[in-house]
Amino acid sequence: MSKLTNECIRVASRPSGIPAAEHFRRTSEAVPELGPGKILVQNQWLSIEPAMRGWLADANNYASVPVGDVMRSLCVGTVVDSAADGYNKGDRLMGWFGWQHYAVITPDAIVQNISTTDLEPSLYLGVLGLNGVTAATALDKLGQPQAGETVVVSTAAGGVGSCVGQLAKALGCRTVGLTSTPEKAEACKTQFGYDHVINYKTDDIAAALKDACPDGVHVYFDNTSGRISDAVMPQLAIGARVVICGTASISSWDPAPMGPRIERILLTRRARMQGFIQFDHMDTYPSYVRQLEDMVRTGKLHHREHITDGLDTAMGAIQELYQGQNLGKRLVRL
Amino acid sequence: MSKLTNECIRVASRPSGIPAAEHFRRTSEAVPELGPGKILVQNQWLSIEPAMRGWLADANNYASVPVGDVMRSLCVGTVVDSAADGYNKGDRLMGWFGWQHYAVITPDAIVQNISTTDLEPSLYLGVLGLNGVTAATALDKLGQPQAGETVVVSTAAGGVGSCVGQLAKALGCRTVGLTSTPEKAEACKTQFGYDHVINYKTDDIAAALKDACPDGVHVYFDNTSGRISDAVMPQLAIGARVVICGTASISSWDPAPMGPRIERILLTRRARMQGFIQFDHMDTYPSYVRQLEDMVRTGKLHHREHITDGLDTAMGAIQELYQGQNLGKRLVRL
Repeated sequence: MSKLTNECIRVASRPSGIPAAEHFRRTSEAVPELGPGKILVQNQWLSIEPAMRGWLADANNYASVPVGDVMRSLCVGTVVDSAADGYNKGDRLMGWFGWQHYAVITPDAIVQNISTTDLEPSLYLGVLGLNGVTAATALDKLGQPQAGETVVVSTAAGGVGSCVGQLAKALGCRTVGLTSTPEKAEACKTQFGYDHVINYKTDDIAAALKDACPDGVHVYFDNTSGRISDAVMPQLAIGARVVICGTASISSWDPAPMGPRIERILLTRRARMQGFIQFDHMDTYPSYVRQLEDMVRTGKLHHREHITDGLDTAMGAIQELYQGQNLGKRLVRL
Repeated sequence: MSKLTNECIRVASRPSGIPAAEHFRRTSEAVPELGPGKILVQNQWLSIEPAMRGWLADANNYASVPVGDVMRSLCVGTVVDSAADGYNKGDRLMGWFGWQHYAVITPDAIVQNISTTDLEPSLYLGVLGLNGVTAATALDKLGQPQAGETVVVSTAAGGVGSCVGQLAKALGCRTVGLTSTPEKAEACKTQFGYDHVINYKTDDIAAALKDACPDGVHVYFDNTSGRISDAVMPQLAIGARVVICGTASISSWDPAPMGPRIERILLTRRARMQGFIQFDHMDTYPSYVRQLEDMVRTGKLHHREHITDGLDTAMGAIQELYQGQNLGKRLVRL
């Protein structure tokens, strides 16, 4: 196996805002011999996540990737060689294998074994992966939507948002999605089943929300912060729950940008606002995946993928994500 | 009974900011005959609450008092005459009897019968009343402090804050109080048992908090919003709980003043921020009063009262409260 050459994308420098291709570099190196307990995985799919901006940021972050390291990424790959009990050549795995062709890992890097054969493996990086599970877990544990309530999603067509909308709809909620282009708005309506779709770039957000949410907003699933949130917050219903799952509209938090204070809204509406990070909830990951697999099989959970081919296309992909150029889960196929 | 004359303080106009004496007027009128089911109460104690500013505000409020009405207030009074089953002359009651000498009420205005004889009745407007019960309920249900955690209170010497500090201390927490004068700081240390006291008018709040909270802030019990909160929020610990119980430092919310955005803090710390209004929790009021009575009896819960005499002194009292002139629960004795 030592004859294999690995191609990797490493962190070249720490971006101050959104990571671009220039913050990465490609390296070529020999794949090391497998030590005991190790597994050699060949990646087929790499994931591009909005959270990667946070992993590359210095300040206020929970999990920085050091400069020089292979870029952290969830991937789907196949076991090529194994010196670890319970893992065999040909096993399909999803886990933290990084932006590279080959990864030598220990089992703690594995998020899940993909044992299904009827579902596309790439789904385990999207609708059946971190996106879908984040949506299901955060909506269930923090959002706690009840049938008949109104659920507003701030990135309605995105990987997480599109799942939130469909999960809330399946629970009997009225769903309202905010998105940025007519193409995404169309997908929100036809594919993701939103009851109302608001284009936050062209519509008067506050007025459109008032029309779409006559009883107020019971659950606000927020992936953006910024001016979308500023329009949603004053329309919270009594007892509303706000799930903070991302802050995609703000490019730098050092120092924190100013916005309208929200304490009075939280007080008068007895509302709850809470931050969510999936890594705190990995114990319940498998059970949410089962639930999502069932919904995909029965046609209740739709998804889109935006795929580019080749390792090098990963380098600019985070920036493209923040420019809103993708429609659906952003993946790199190797 | 119809010969009795009632003196009342009524709402004269709606203040745009903090209510002052000019927003009230005194009226004199006959006490009406008692109809069936009614109770005539003679007030002995009137309560002055920070929340009264909200009750008098137009916008974004949950419970406005109409202009012309007797000012809403919790009071302690004695039954003078009763045409309601279960209530007899001489009974001591705490409830919504208003800023007036006499109130003709129905039993739904009563918050509780005061059946204890070993505790001063005025306590049922403070440490054993809405203040104490708010502190106990919000800390328990929303703050959920654990032994060894750090609890920060933004109005440490106030009616609610002083109870929060003592309750948290009794649970084994490290308590840090913010207050505004050396006199209040002294009371926080000697009477309310805070481990650390910060004068938010003279100290560097952020630096003082960093010294006082080396493990971060696990529970922030906020009665102020504003610059105190701006210093506390970045020091939240992972999994912190923020209880929004009041917004005393902000005089107008229309429009909402600007402050540093907090979404990123909530996300990276997986923190929860929630508004609390005691009126949502009246079912558990009696059980928290029992708990507080026991603590008062055993000397574990101290309090201060700031008393003025005569109905007219109520009119300027809300403004005085916001000017920080009081030390302890603000009461008017009739």
